[in-house]
Amino acid sequence: MATRINSVPHPTLIQVDPFLPADEQQGLHNRWHPDIPPFVTVKPGDVFKVECVDWTGAQIGNNDNSDDVRDVDLTKVHNLTGPIAIEGAEPGDCLVVDILDVTPFEKMPWGYTGIFELRNGGGLFAREFNSRACKAIWDFHGVYATSRHIPGVRFAGVSHPGLIGTAPSHELLAQWNKREKELIDAHPGAVPPVAFPPEPVGAHVGQLGLSDNLKERIAREGARTIPGREHGGNCDIKNLSRGSRCYFPVFVRGANLSVGDLHFSQGDGELSFCGAIEMAGIITFKTSIIKNGVEKFALKQPIFLPSPIDPVYSSKLVFEGISVDYHGDGKQYNMDATVAYKQAALNAIAYLQKLGFTREQAYILLSAAPIEAHVGAVVDSPNACVTLALPVGIFDFDILPKEEGLQKRDLGQCAVRSDGLL
Amino acid sequence: MATRINSVPHPTLIQVDPFLPADEQQGLHNRWHPDIPPFVTVKPGDVFKVECVDWTGAQIGNNDNSDDVRDVDLTKVHNLTGPIAIEGAEPGDCLVVDILDVTPFEKMPWGYTGIFELRNGGGLFAREFNSRACKAIWDFHGVYATSRHIPGVRFAGVSHPGLIGTAPSHELLAQWNKREKELIDAHPGAVPPVAFPPEPVGAHVGQLGLSDNLKERIAREGARTIPGREHGGNCDIKNLSRGSRCYFPVFVRGANLSVGDLHFSQGDGELSFCGAIEMAGIITFKTSIIKNGVEKFALKQPIFLPSPIDPVYSSKLVFEGISVDYHGDGKQYNMDATVAYKQAALNAIAYLQKLGFTREQAYILLSAAPIEAHVGAVVDSPNACVTLALPVGIFDFDILPKEEGLQKRDLGQCAVRSDGLL
Amino acid sequence: MATRINSVPHPTLIQVDPFLPADEQQGLHNRWHPDIPPFVTVKPGDVFKVECVDWTGAQIGNNDNSDDVRDVDLTKVHNLTGPIAIEGAEPGDCLVVDILDVTPFEKMPWGYTGIFELRNGGGLFAREFNSRACKAIWDFHGVYATSRHIPGVRFAGVSHPGLIGTAPSHELLAQWNKREKELIDAHPGAVPPVAFPPEPVGAHVGQLGLSDNLKERIAREGARTIPGREHGGNCDIKNLSRGSRCYFPVFVRGANLSVGDLHFSQGDGELSFCGAIEMAGIITFKTSIIKNGVEKFALKQPIFLPSPIDPVYSSKLVFEGISVDYHGDGKQYNMDATVAYKQAALNAIAYLQKLGFTREQAYILLSAAPIEAHVGAVVDSPNACVTLALPVGIFDFDILPKEEGLQKRDLGQCAVRSDGLL
Amino acid sequence: MATRINSVPHPTLIQVDPFLPADEQQGLHNRWHPDIPPFVTVKPGDVFKVECVDWTGAQIGNNDNSDDVRDVDLTKVHNLTGPIAIEGAEPGDCLVVDILDVTPFEKMPWGYTGIFELRNGGGLFAREFNSRACKAIWDFHGVYATSRHIPGVRFAGVSHPGLIGTAPSHELLAQWNKREKELIDAHPGAVPPVAFPPEPVGAHVGQLGLSDNLKERIAREGARTIPGREHGGNCDIKNLSRGSRCYFPVFVRGANLSVGDLHFSQGDGELSFCGAIEMAGIITFKTSIIKNGVEKFALKQPIFLPSPIDPVYSSKLVFEGISVDYHGDGKQYNMDATVAYKQAALNAIAYLQKLGFTREQAYILLSAAPIEAHVGAVVDSPNACVTLALPVGIFDFDILPKEEGLQKRDLGQCAVRSDGLL
Repeated sequence: MATRINSVPHPTLIQVDPFLPADEQQGLHNRWHPDIPPFVTVKPGDVFKVECVDWTGAQIGNNDNSDDVRDVDLTKVHNLTGPIAIEGAEPGDCLVVDILDVTPFEKMPWGYTGIFELRNGGGLFAREFNSRACKAIWDFHGVYATSRHIPGVRFAGVSHPGLIGTAPSHELLAQWNKREKELIDAHPGAVPPVAFPPEPVGAHVGQLGLSDNLKERIAREGARTIPGREHGGNCDIKNLSRGSRCYFPVFVRGANLSVGDLHFSQGDGELSFCGAIEMAGIITFKTSIIKNGVEKFALKQPIFLPSPIDPVYSSKLVFEGISVDYHGDGKQYNMDATVAYKQAALNAIAYLQKLGFTREQAYILLSAAPIEAHVGAVVDSPNACVTLALPVGIFDFDILPKEEGLQKRDLGQCAVRSDGLL
Repeated sequence: MATRINSVPHPTLIQVDPFLPADEQQGLHNRWHPDIPPFVTVKPGDVFKVECVDWTGAQIGNNDNSDDVRDVDLTKVHNLTGPIAIEGAEPGDCLVVDILDVTPFEKMPWGYTGIFELRNGGGLFAREFNSRACKAIWDFHGVYATSRHIPGVRFAGVSHPGLIGTAPSHELLAQWNKREKELIDAHPGAVPPVAFPPEPVGAHVGQLGLSDNLKERIAREGARTIPGREHGGNCDIKNLSRGSRCYFPVFVRGANLSVGDLHFSQGDGELSFCGAIEMAGIITFKTSIIKNGVEKFALKQPIFLPSPIDPVYSSKLVFEGISVDYHGDGKQYNMDATVAYKQAALNAIAYLQKLGFTREQAYILLSAAPIEAHVGAVVDSPNACVTLALPVGIFDFDILPKEEGLQKRDLGQCAVRSDGLL
Repeated sequence: MATRINSVPHPTLIQVDPFLPADEQQGLHNRWHPDIPPFVTVKPGDVFKVECVDWTGAQIGNNDNSDDVRDVDLTKVHNLTGPIAIEGAEPGDCLVVDILDVTPFEKMPWGYTGIFELRNGGGLFAREFNSRACKAIWDFHGVYATSRHIPGVRFAGVSHPGLIGTAPSHELLAQWNKREKELIDAHPGAVPPVAFPPEPVGAHVGQLGLSDNLKERIAREGARTIPGREHGGNCDIKNLSRGSRCYFPVFVRGANLSVGDLHFSQGDGELSFCGAIEMAGIITFKTSIIKNGVEKFALKQPIFLPSPIDPVYSSKLVFEGISVDYHGDGKQYNMDATVAYKQAALNAIAYLQKLGFTREQAYILLSAAPIEAHVGAVVDSPNACVTLALPVGIFDFDILPKEEGLQKRDLGQCAVRSDGLL
Repeated sequence: MATRINSVPHPTLIQVDPFLPADEQQGLHNRWHPDIPPFVTVKPGDVFKVECVDWTGAQIGNNDNSDDVRDVDLTKVHNLTGPIAIEGAEPGDCLVVDILDVTPFEKMPWGYTGIFELRNGGGLFAREFNSRACKAIWDFHGVYATSRHIPGVRFAGVSHPGLIGTAPSHELLAQWNKREKELIDAHPGAVPPVAFPPEPVGAHVGQLGLSDNLKERIAREGARTIPGREHGGNCDIKNLSRGSRCYFPVFVRGANLSVGDLHFSQGDGELSFCGAIEMAGIITFKTSIIKNGVEKFALKQPIFLPSPIDPVYSSKLVFEGISVDYHGDGKQYNMDATVAYKQAALNAIAYLQKLGFTREQAYILLSAAPIEAHVGAVVDSPNACVTLALPVGIFDFDILPKEEGLQKRDLGQCAVRSDGLL
């Protein structure tokens, strides 16, 4: 007979409250540093859960204006759960991480996608659009998301951690800070900034009993969490989703895995910076160790096996872009895949506007829905070619090109600033 | 009863000989210019075929050294079949092109992939590898390709035209030449060149009765075929494959469609420049016209619907890369997706070398096999993140990471120069 | 800011305890009858959850013998949650049901697959194998299941309700009971029985305040839940999974939807009768009504749109079968797809035995894993042809045919009876 | 340089004329018998082509009436190309056959689907519909088929040989003839017949120099080609398509492979008997031998690996059926998957009629298009449940259920008898 006695739930090793500010909570941190002690330790083979706040730590609300996005404090992001030490892991090993599940909290069945201000966060088109804060709230209905701010659309989530990585060694951390400083120095006054140096303000390590000295050092030296790096980090790869198996290089004893920035869904590119459907939630892990795996697999950065349950929308409309800024000043770039992707995305946005979406709705939709961006070719000088594939099946109506043109619907708009600025 | 009388084959409107130099043949041209007259004219709705030589025009042979690749004459490429005028098409219209089939010639069941010399063609890693000419010959066995130069691999082709486009208007052509000249001027002496200006040497328009004046003008002004541009062109998008439906902007009366550079297969990125499995062959088309389609669909560049028969390999091993040249000098780039893709590809090459492939075999394999390159994220300053997904099912042996490491096989090498330089 | 106040969880309208006998609980019933009153009522558009016990109502335990399967009381199955009335639904309407999610209880992360005794339940091969009770316990690790009783296998669940349907009208119920009685009468003494007549013993309607008279009538007349019928019911269609949208005919006012028999996974055919991975859990619904939908869509039985997140394993090994009992007495059947499927399954079992699985492990595996059974052809007299596709990617080792034959591993056995009978 | 000299086409070992009666041609035969000598012999590893007439041997024409279908001579089918002996194959071996490509003749870019008369061929609904001959002609446009007799539909072909098999041994042949005779004897006078005994009339072995004695014996004893059997044969499995790899048991020295009945496309079930898109064409093969493979893989019937290029239409509308003849007399059948599939198909036909297709168009469409029929469950006594999945993407218009019902279009009708009988 089935009894509670013969049923053993998987333990939740780190619990957080998605409705409390992150810097008031234990088991969270927001900088990368080798000296952050593990908050919990697991054995290889254990199945366990940890909880995550959303990346901002509860700064964004389920409402119909975007002032919270406008005013977000970015010194406090990303809030990561961990570190989790894995017994026996040593530098040079490969840490195998099964991402067994990623779900929102039952008590918080919603998430958000934001367009950030040009001067507070940016995004792929921050300068082109002179972006003001906008927002879409997404409601989670089981495996699907819909938004009152972007009607006519429903899609299944390719849920994943936007940010997951092992702790860097001291050497690696120093290398990061050095190379990024050089980039910053080469672009003085850039808006948005080209990179983010260590920043003591807002730094948080939610652990009791740490010496002030240590805390101060972490805050002063700790790498910011914005970019992905050799250890994984904020790669924002949508297919690192529930059901995937990942192979991380280990740089410190115990590996010290941290995770956060959970996404209900995201498109390739995460265009609007806060472009995924950001959520708080729960992630289920299982780990194992392959000794000396860095050498065995020539690991300079994680590799992974995608999940068999990633959403499949076989019918797609594909937009192309090349490395000429033909939506802007017409400048010819040299094999620049980023510029090419921007053109493809701008072509898609223009198409979606023909259907009645506003520019901001389209921008958010391409950021959050499971679109695919492929590097077509990067050898045909001077033009890189990048494509953006928009799944047709996520729309309630037919979006394919028609002889008679496209029907422009009234689809409202996304949540804007209370001062109405757009 | 089935009789020859009630069976009407689709006509082949342009015939070529894949074993003759392209510049000796009619119906081929190798520059883009609005004044190249249509070679044939079709009606919307017609199903028809045209034949294509390989992009070099028979310069590369089915043999076991790469001297022909080393010595290739690039002033003569790409050799395009056409132009094909479509009755009724006018500037501003959208030309709908169904790519109904793409097949090799029955008499030529092979193709090739080349690594080009640093000083004659280049490729994504031309400088990093100081590339010397290498080559793999692929045998076509129905829907599959295998190579004696890269044993242990077999995959189904995602066959497509690497190059397809409508003719530019005079205005558009002038714009291309201007912007590309500016780039060239900004990179004097670059090796490989950053772009290719108009070049009368090697120019070819295979049509009888053209005035010398016209020919000379086309040769002098005609845009080179290397990059993809607003009209399509050499986009090298692997999913623009047989079964796809494409929507082209029309710039001149009749649209004047040209096509060439057929690929039996290609990976996203076409890394080694001549990275697809290049072939001569036959393409089957059907066209229609949507009046004023450029405005209706906000067409700045072609859009398309992919084919339902593109090969599916659901099991993949994915490599990540960021915009730091950690395989080179460690430099931090600013959100550069091209640099990120290079790292992902170099990670994959290093992994394939652990399995016994040489660096050149791996480079060619990633160029030619149906790998997928996704833009992971391009907003996490300063690092773009790009992934490369290698289909597991194309290998005869198991390539997945194993506890015990990877088994290094003896897999020979690809075809190299007769002087042995590599 | 994110607060508890702006977060509204989806309500759980019916709660059950998976560790208590079903007949002690409210909101459950185990017969189909038009007069079972709705237990809850919802409005079209509501998103809500209901909880389900496993189909046996906690009769099976997480342990290593199969005595509980041997002794299962089948008069008490299936235990269904409901009925749920939908406001406004009337006979002739179409009830649209979005199956938004199907998950196990967090407190019960396991399920089971059973081979039932020939004389208590049966199964596709009950007679061929003279089946004795066997069992495999599956542990749920996020989206995956593994079993200590069938090592070497891991797969993602295509989680679904095995049983979901609207309440029959009195006329429809009478028709069911009549036609099934005729079948039973035509096969006196069949073992296992060919069908199950109404059976007062074990009947349960978990609602307070019902008159004894009504309860007795439901028990006496109520249709058994074993087969699927025009209203849906126990169709055991694996692709009616989380993310699917289903269209049910409505036969009574309110539609009176009931659901149960949740499956973490199942193969096409559910061969061993209790062949899915049976679980208790939670299902999330949203409904809407299409007036007069039965006429609009010619609905004689539900139709549905499958989910975009059903697991994809593109590499498969396919077994064929025809309607000749060549694994038995060699008899030729007349276009019998069931016989054909049996041969395909027996071919697959024989193959799996070559790999080291026992016959019972193979039987359970084909029942529970996401295998696909296609009707190849049913017109080539006298042989129906049916195929069974076994996904290669669910095995930890390579199962494909090899020149040197298959490697036979020691894979233990499934849970058997404590008296050791097999 | 590419030259004719370094290009070796794959040889076509058997050539036929699709416009000539099959019984006038060499290299064709239409009965299974171990003593039919091989027509050609190949070595393992050879890539080669053989040509096939359509299954009727040119009896059906590209025109707009169905008199040829009505009058078809079924004693003359199926016309198979072969036998092809493989050097070294011996009884008990496994013959590995790569189906590398399957294409129509360039000179015959069309095929047909027929509904056969109740009294001449039958079909799944021959009795239910009291079928009269109907026909749809399909035009091949590259990878796609369309029909002037079924407008509004276009799909990519899952091209395959409907019939492929190794020659039976004398023992196996005797077994076939015996068991099928028993079935025939048990159903005297059945219309359509339940099976087809050996029939000298119409028998054909297109080889010169065979003794009259041998020819007469083959005609007298040879098994008819209608059903699939242990050697493969007329299995009509749509996924045994170009790109698949098949493993056949070998029963005679040389294996003696024969092939025919090429299909441009087919749905699971091939409902209308001549339900595929029947075509003449060319098939490309490569073979190898696994010694003692029958024992190694427990081969009682072929197994196979499907192709990576089978068409993918992820969006589907699924119809269910159970083993109750609710479209007919309401009879309850005992776990009969064939009856269940019939109901699912009848449900789909009724739905398609709501869209404006005639019953016959719908019947043909479900037979010829890449629909999928899954065995849902075959253990829920008394009802087998079978599903039929109709790909949404093959229609030019939206077929999904709508609030407002389905739009009934005028879609003409298929080709009928010249006497107008339907």
